[in-house]
Amino acid sequence: MLHRLLLSVSILPLFAAQAAHDAAALRDTAAREDGLAWEITEGLTTEIGPRLAATDAELRALDWGAAKLKALGFANVRVERFTMPRWERGPASAEIVAPFPQSMALAALGNSGATPKGGLTAELVAFDGLEALRAAPADTVRGRIVYLTHHMRAQQDGGSYGALSAIRTQGPALGAAKGAAAVVIRSIGTDSHRLPHTGVTRFPDGTRPIPAAALSAPDADQIERILARGRPVRLRLDIATRVTPGAQSGNLIAEVPGTDPSAGMILIGGHLDSWDQGTGAIDDASGVAIVTAAAKRIMDAGRPLRTIRIVWFGAEEVGGNGGEAYAKAHGAERHMAVAESDFGADRVWSYSVTAGAASAPLVTRLGTALAPLGITYSRSAAHGGTDVAPTAQTGTAVFDLRQDGTRYFDLHHTPDDTLDKIDPVQLRQNVAAWTATLAVLANDPAGLAPPAKDAAHD
Amino acid sequence: MLHRLLLSVSILPLFAAQAAHDAAALRDTAAREDGLAWEITEGLTTEIGPRLAATDAELRALDWGAAKLKALGFANVRVERFTMPRWERGPASAEIVAPFPQSMALAALGNSGATPKGGLTAELVAFDGLEALRAAPADTVRGRIVYLTHHMRAQQDGGSYGALSAIRTQGPALGAAKGAAAVVIRSIGTDSHRLPHTGVTRFPDGTRPIPAAALSAPDADQIERILARGRPVRLRLDIATRVTPGAQSGNLIAEVPGTDPSAGMILIGGHLDSWDQGTGAIDDASGVAIVTAAAKRIMDAGRPLRTIRIVWFGAEEVGGNGGEAYAKAHGAERHMAVAESDFGADRVWSYSVTAGAASAPLVTRLGTALAPLGITYSRSAAHGGTDVAPTAQTGTAVFDLRQDGTRYFDLHHTPDDTLDKIDPVQLRQNVAAWTATLAVLANDPAGLAPPAKDAAHD
Repeated sequence: MLHRLLLSVSILPLFAAQAAHDAAALRDTAAREDGLAWEITEGLTTEIGPRLAATDAELRALDWGAAKLKALGFANVRVERFTMPRWERGPASAEIVAPFPQSMALAALGNSGATPKGGLTAELVAFDGLEALRAAPADTVRGRIVYLTHHMRAQQDGGSYGALSAIRTQGPALGAAKGAAAVVIRSIGTDSHRLPHTGVTRFPDGTRPIPAAALSAPDADQIERILARGRPVRLRLDIATRVTPGAQSGNLIAEVPGTDPSAGMILIGGHLDSWDQGTGAIDDASGVAIVTAAAKRIMDAGRPLRTIRIVWFGAEEVGGNGGEAYAKAHGAERHMAVAESDFGADRVWSYSVTAGAASAPLVTRLGTALAPLGITYSRSAAHGGTDVAPTAQTGTAVFDLRQDGTRYFDLHHTPDDTLDKIDPVQLRQNVAAWTATLAVLANDPAGLAPPAKDAAHD
Repeated sequence: MLHRLLLSVSILPLFAAQAAHDAAALRDTAAREDGLAWEITEGLTTEIGPRLAATDAELRALDWGAAKLKALGFANVRVERFTMPRWERGPASAEIVAPFPQSMALAALGNSGATPKGGLTAELVAFDGLEALRAAPADTVRGRIVYLTHHMRAQQDGGSYGALSAIRTQGPALGAAKGAAAVVIRSIGTDSHRLPHTGVTRFPDGTRPIPAAALSAPDADQIERILARGRPVRLRLDIATRVTPGAQSGNLIAEVPGTDPSAGMILIGGHLDSWDQGTGAIDDASGVAIVTAAAKRIMDAGRPLRTIRIVWFGAEEVGGNGGEAYAKAHGAERHMAVAESDFGADRVWSYSVTAGAASAPLVTRLGTALAPLGITYSRSAAHGGTDVAPTAQTGTAVFDLRQDGTRYFDLHHTPDDTLDKIDPVQLRQNVAAWTATLAVLANDPAGLAPPAKDAAHD
């Protein structure tokens, strides 16, 4: 591995050769021995556990994180609070009343309304996908419980989630607009466990939220087997929820100061909040842990040229409130590039960069630094993630270190998102990838150029 | 495969050669095309779902099964009812109160007592295994919540369950005897999902049951990580349960009549009841389905020499009440051999027989019939399962067709015991194994001899 790198660096100018050498050494040490990413992931998931946005648990997590980042020696550690409504689930139950009485495993979606006290019972009307519901006359839906299914399968790049998550985010509002009593979806996930996947759904302003919930995949299978028998299916739902306006959330910010304040910052982050069902290990304790461990390695190697700003964003899951608050407060500052780790902790397999054409040689150098980790270039646009997207919209470069998502949607937003699902070896590979990337990007005199104004930020 | 069989049968007497040929043909057809075992498993788990002992659901399942067995053409189909107490779970919740507040996934064990209204909160005292608890002075336990852990790993023969399930069956009573407020165990299972494994626990007659529950493996890991930090852990439990005396359960019985009433019966079965958390697909809809599908194949091939009696036992999970009731009613009848399928639906990999020494040649012929399915002889004693054990105690021969248990305890007694966990190809291999076995044993003039009086029935 080393002699390949030496060959490739021999054609670079002296500065770049030294930087590449440093990046390789830092990368290989991280891959071999990083323990910090595990320590942060273990600590946050154990000592705080679930961290639903704008709850006491999220505030405890902000305190926990601030203490940790200070102890690690980062500069300018502070929490920037913001205000938002808090949505919380209460007890939820579902049962088939007819034709075959039995209980179902389901979870309310974030922003779901509650059923009347004592629950509601109605006949199911089933649709395969959002377009089928969109096409349905309102009188086939009115007063019924809409059941929405799909055929999600695992994909390495997680693309099936992009294609199908609208069933969760938009299906309930679409059902409400047609007069549905409630909307129940097949979990947006790829596992076969009785653990429903929650996640946010959205009702337009001024719309009264109806009950909206997800069934686990085996329960959805059961519903579909019963529907296939051709008899009416009556479902009883009893879902409690609570909304508290004016609750507190916040972003936790820390820095590795650069030697050149005019060189712009690299903003890296993940999100501190999690859904309430699990302890948010892959989503996203590991994300904040990976970027923090990588930044710590850069800091310990000597002051970089360019400032690295770490943000542990609050309230990502319920609507990206933390990312919006950050962009509002800091969008005018000079960000050279933004990036986020929010797709679990399995190995990084590709990288992509959205930047100006002038940056092509730097992107190639980045690829050289990442190649020994099995990471290859992807031409698709870098999107950066929910938390950094509002800042990216100001015109910054964006880079992605894309993780293997094959098993991500087995766990995503379920009670199963717990520490035991993290593979320490793959976690270290992530830290190595971020360390190499920061070593290259934080020390390059030019840095990444902003993308052309019409570049895609999806 | 076929020429091997022909070679081996050439040394057998004419009758046995014909029987072996029939067994092979029936076996291979079952392996290729059986659909009945799937149909029964799918029907029972879909149209009835969970079937807790002595509930309305179990009674509906008895009706469902009786209609099915009659429609299939079996003789003497009837339900034999018996009376027993019904234990039911209500809502259960657990949360760590200190040092790191968060909720836990847990399930009450069968026969668990309830907490006082509003729950109980106490400090945890942890023990690694039953012997550690046994050795503990009562004053270290009194008034506390005992936490019992273990290190179960998957094994093909399921032996780890035999070794460790006493933690569940005996741990709570042992804790109660030392004055514990409650006992919480790490689930007796091998998965890493937030789905606790329930199962029966036993309190001696006259002992007031204390609350007894299982945490899922990730929750148990979490408790152990927190305990490892050396600070007192306070747990709050809120567990509702209900016991109703004098409830109804029953055994469903059907027969394939033999031509020789004096030849003794072969009793085969599985259990109809299930735990309430899942739909009892692997435990044990598939068991009753496998033995029924095999008996149907024998029946359709022409009347066997010896009667085959099928029993779908009631109330196995909560204490083997169905097996006891059957032995009480029928133990004096002549059973040539007894066997049960109650270990899922993954492939049969070995067989064992407990019978008199005179049966050695018949056991060898059975092996010849099973070998093409990848099934080899095991010298360990055949135990037959909970339902047929009381009948075996009367002195009958016993045979086991042992299923691969590698993933059985990932699912056992959890909400995840659902139809999607059944592999139709392996299910058919089970039917083929039982069909071949019945073809050999039901038609052999001598049959299996009873074991010597001191033979092991474990």
